[in-house]
Amino acid sequence: MSFEEMWADLLPIGKDDAGGGYHRFAWTPPELECRAWFLDEARRRGLDVEHDPNGNMVAWWFPESGARDDAVLTGSHLDSVPGGGAFDGPLGVVSAFAAVDLLRKHGTALERPIGIGAFAEEEGARFGVACLGSRLLAGAIDPARARGLTGADGRTFAEVMHNAGLDPEAIGPDDDLLGRIGCYVELHVEQGRALTEPVGVASSIVPHGRWRFEFAGEGNHAGTTRLVDRRDPMLPFAAMVLAAREAAERNGTVATVGKVRVVPGGVNAIASSVTGWLDARGPADDAVRRTVTEVDEAARVAARPHRVSVELAEESYTEIVDFDHTLRDRLAGTLGGAPVLPTGAGHDAGILSSRVPAAMLFVRNPTGVSHAPAEFAEQDDCLAGVEALASVLADLACG
Amino acid sequence: MSFEEMWADLLPIGKDDAGGGYHRFAWTPPELECRAWFLDEARRRGLDVEHDPNGNMVAWWFPESGARDDAVLTGSHLDSVPGGGAFDGPLGVVSAFAAVDLLRKHGTALERPIGIGAFAEEEGARFGVACLGSRLLAGAIDPARARGLTGADGRTFAEVMHNAGLDPEAIGPDDDLLGRIGCYVELHVEQGRALTEPVGVASSIVPHGRWRFEFAGEGNHAGTTRLVDRRDPMLPFAAMVLAAREAAERNGTVATVGKVRVVPGGVNAIASSVTGWLDARGPADDAVRRTVTEVDEAARVAARPHRVSVELAEESYTEIVDFDHTLRDRLAGTLGGAPVLPTGAGHDAGILSSRVPAAMLFVRNPTGVSHAPAEFAEQDDCLAGVEALASVLADLACG
Repeated sequence: MSFEEMWADLLPIGKDDAGGGYHRFAWTPPELECRAWFLDEARRRGLDVEHDPNGNMVAWWFPESGARDDAVLTGSHLDSVPGGGAFDGPLGVVSAFAAVDLLRKHGTALERPIGIGAFAEEEGARFGVACLGSRLLAGAIDPARARGLTGADGRTFAEVMHNAGLDPEAIGPDDDLLGRIGCYVELHVEQGRALTEPVGVASSIVPHGRWRFEFAGEGNHAGTTRLVDRRDPMLPFAAMVLAAREAAERNGTVATVGKVRVVPGGVNAIASSVTGWLDARGPADDAVRRTVTEVDEAARVAARPHRVSVELAEESYTEIVDFDHTLRDRLAGTLGGAPVLPTGAGHDAGILSSRVPAAMLFVRNPTGVSHAPAEFAEQDDCLAGVEALASVLADLACG
Repeated sequence: MSFEEMWADLLPIGKDDAGGGYHRFAWTPPELECRAWFLDEARRRGLDVEHDPNGNMVAWWFPESGARDDAVLTGSHLDSVPGGGAFDGPLGVVSAFAAVDLLRKHGTALERPIGIGAFAEEEGARFGVACLGSRLLAGAIDPARARGLTGADGRTFAEVMHNAGLDPEAIGPDDDLLGRIGCYVELHVEQGRALTEPVGVASSIVPHGRWRFEFAGEGNHAGTTRLVDRRDPMLPFAAMVLAAREAAERNGTVATVGKVRVVPGGVNAIASSVTGWLDARGPADDAVRRTVTEVDEAARVAARPHRVSVELAEESYTEIVDFDHTLRDRLAGTLGGAPVLPTGAGHDAGILSSRVPAAMLFVRNPTGVSHAPAEFAEQDDCLAGVEALASVLADLACG
């Protein structure tokens, strides 16, 4: 199967016909269909698939020597955000299979194994924690906490794993697998417009986190409650949204409110509570921390005259990930001086970098749109990505 | 069954044990239980129950003369908003049964029938149109439009009626029933804090409406999209929320945003669209209209720099309902000069006033909270309401 054929096979899976993008959440039918596709592609190429205890899969191409250690792992993920694009995740997996095909076509003789990984629940769209599969593999999340994570359908990660035929008690770090990996190289579509050449190399993942603001007021009748008697939590929520943008501008960061929950949520009822989620990222820890502090202060100032309480909870925070410099420079060198750039997006490579040298290749995104149906990369750039990945894998697995 | 016993029977039905109030939506199990309660109370008193084609019920107490015309109708509704209080609706129905008991205890001889009504889907919480039962009865909504109204579970009003054993093709004005009604008097808990005596009489229902703002931008990645590249619809939505409060203050109206829908609604995704609902009410049409126009203008000004489009749709609008002056003055006189006051809440009495003389009695609400779990009226005030309603019914049905 060529790159184009593999791409065409994945394209209809989990797609919203009304133009709303992809809905491929961990262990839902569309994501299971993507997993079946992965197993098919591995089988076609005679690659053995290893299933780790966390729902991650690795398709192995072993050298004729029989060596199993110091492997070069590549790949990405198959799940999506709600209404996501076609490229985020699958591009890295399809490119990995296509790069292996290219190396075999050229008769490349491996000295070390090449593995193609597909990591589970990278987006956190079902259970709320991004990179859940790679976090479990790397020991970056407590398995007991992971088992209790609950999706919008009320089912826990443990239940869903059990229903998928996996043992939720067995999840956690897989030191045997990690011990066999020499390095990890993930190819991914760029998610901004910073890359102006077809392929680039990642320098770092900027600090990023998620915070939850809870505004509690008093539910009441929208028609009969005088303005002065209201304790409407929607008002400081709105002020918080605007303050987030202003704080981001001041601090050179980005800050976004993309999710909100209103209780009770009736047209003719003043809300009793509003929960707003803040996503903030920036070039340095202090800039991100300052952004959140300023938003929190603005929310409290706005809430006071309305007698609304404010609570702030940090749901997750990831400090800067500075990718292994030796590996990064080796990739950039192999690719003839490809541009090296940071990214504002989290990735499995960022999680795994705590355990193995990790690096990333980015493929140009002409519009910069990502996590949305319009996410796009030119076919020529994708094929340049496959060539680049093949060169890098050859260098790392044969050199 | 005394007032207290009837109240105690209704109290547990559809109540959220976690303190979230009542969830009694039309033809859902809790609301069906309330209907069964109504039929039981009518049966206990030997009252014949008439079912109109629209899901409304009337329990009739006929005079010994056998007269059927020029009836005095009272009652209210049994359904609730999401997370509503115990009083909004049921107080009027329970008080009607208790008032009939009081008249019978005093040996009152009727000249005209007294009917106790329970109107369907008054809150519009299931199908989106408030006072749906009384609107259909009065011919104030096209039956074909009503049949097509769809709830959050995807089922239409026609399907739900059919499943409840009713004929959706038969809905619409019931001129025979309306022709037998001389006047309608609805008792209701006051929903603000304007009433400082136990019982008052309504003068009018102020103009009120619902509007829907659709903000359309561009979905994108919350981490990788530069601020200048964003088209984030959450920002003008937030500006609209704040503008609604300011416009209400300027115009002497109330304006509320209590419901919002964000697409796709992911923490790490800039929204592609945000829909916000505006509820606005005020003492006069022009003040309400001006409020909405000013909010719309502010939303457009806020949306422009973010390259977000704004669409405004009017979902419903009800002009001022000025209750029949003769009936209103007669009630106030019977009650020894009870205070007369307007209300910001819509009611079945407002809808029926287009077909029959209608009036309302309000029972004091010490906190003014309504459409929320904390909605409350003192027991003594409720019993004063029963006494007042009995006096009014005696005057109207025997005088």
